[in-house]
Amino acid sequence: MNKHFILALDTGSAPMSPADLETALRAIGTERYHDLHPFHDLLHGGHLDKGQVQAWALNRYCYQAAIPRKDASLIGRCEDRELRREWLHRVTDHDGNCEDPGGIERWLILTDGLGLDRDYVVSQQGALSTTRFAVEAYVRFVREKSLLEAVASSLTELFAPSIHRRRIAGMLKNYSFIDETVVAYFRRRLDQAPRDAQFALDYVKRHAVTVEQQRAVLAALTFKTEVLWAQLDALHYAYVTPGNIPPGAFRPD
Amino acid sequence: MNKHFILALDTGSAPMSPADLETALRAIGTERYHDLHPFHDLLHGGHLDKGQVQAWALNRYCYQAAIPRKDASLIGRCEDRELRREWLHRVTDHDGNCEDPGGIERWLILTDGLGLDRDYVVSQQGALSTTRFAVEAYVRFVREKSLLEAVASSLTELFAPSIHRRRIAGMLKNYSFIDETVVAYFRRRLDQAPRDAQFALDYVKRHAVTVEQQRAVLAALTFKTEVLWAQLDALHYAYVTPGNIPPGAFRPD
Repeated sequence: MNKHFILALDTGSAPMSPADLETALRAIGTERYHDLHPFHDLLHGGHLDKGQVQAWALNRYCYQAAIPRKDASLIGRCEDRELRREWLHRVTDHDGNCEDPGGIERWLILTDGLGLDRDYVVSQQGALSTTRFAVEAYVRFVREKSLLEAVASSLTELFAPSIHRRRIAGMLKNYSFIDETVVAYFRRRLDQAPRDAQFALDYVKRHAVTVEQQRAVLAALTFKTEVLWAQLDALHYAYVTPGNIPPGAFRPD
Repeated sequence: MNKHFILALDTGSAPMSPADLETALRAIGTERYHDLHPFHDLLHGGHLDKGQVQAWALNRYCYQAAIPRKDASLIGRCEDRELRREWLHRVTDHDGNCEDPGGIERWLILTDGLGLDRDYVVSQQGALSTTRFAVEAYVRFVREKSLLEAVASSLTELFAPSIHRRRIAGMLKNYSFIDETVVAYFRRRLDQAPRDAQFALDYVKRHAVTVEQQRAVLAALTFKTEVLWAQLDALHYAYVTPGNIPPGAFRPD
């Protein structure tokens, strides 16, 4: 655990400066973001077969599909019109609108490209129960914790661009069944995530001023890294070592 | 998937008889109860070291600790005084009362016996995030689904006595650090679980009369098997193969 994080968790210490809070938040990413998970090395390095990539994509769909519910829930409890206006594009970024099919549709283009039946993916029937539990834990966190913690839990996007760049390059290079069409989701997130993350980071630095608030936002970001990490643990367990797929979950052909 | 289960999920079929519903419920246990999980073979067969047994016990504590919240939530939404009266002992079975220290205390005697610090266990700080996500999914299911589904989700207790018998025998035989004191939790559950399961089974057979209700109770029991199974997947992943313990989780000495 990094020293900024420990400092923030140490009851009675003085509040950090906004700059130190940012350092502490970024240190959580350095230690806990899921770019460090071994499953991503396998995925990006071309070490998975098509069935394993299918399992990843259909499980990750559950997460994508939940994002607009999570963001709309945040807006739905927010008294601040400016924040609501700013946050709204996150819903349309995923759900789409008249100008853009949206991120969920782009994810389904990925699963189409992998040869998965779209109705099956959307039904989430083949997803691992751990995926569903983790995703719902995230949606409920955003609904039930303080608004500040809800905003802070989005800050994993600070760390997303580098993993998306590695994913695009690695998957295009290493898998014959991946082409530009199916990586469109990640290309688009290269623009969207940094803008969103910067807004949320500024918001958190401005509003987390007491020790208690700073402790809460650091815990919120840590929680979110756990939501992402747990999904990869489950994929790695079920689909890398033969014989571990739970009853009822997707079985590659 | 067994034929009773499929039958029940097949929209438009006629309702099953209570006896067929019981058969279908029991078949879910035969296919999906966590006695089938490979982690339990390792645990009961003496193939884990003390650190791995510690990891199991401190994670499973999260589940034990949540049971009274789950059962109190069920009572809290129940209009039927008879059902409330019947269900109440489940809370005291775990929380204890003036006559009995209760199941949670018995679980802590187990973790004490394994050499774990009691405050650390109770804090749940070292538990796997997947454990916490799965346990909370269960508590929320009981709070938010229909009362009938909430009752049905307890029916994994139908299948508990045989796993408890195997656990008591296997752990006493195979681990030098396990004695009668620490298996008291399971001994007590040998009496408690069958009584509770029989009541819940009778309730479900009496109240699940439409196809939709029968489908709901079968899905509720299936969900509950997933809650249990996901916890063992996470333990197996993190603590059986070296190198997989997630950031922040318990690390055996």
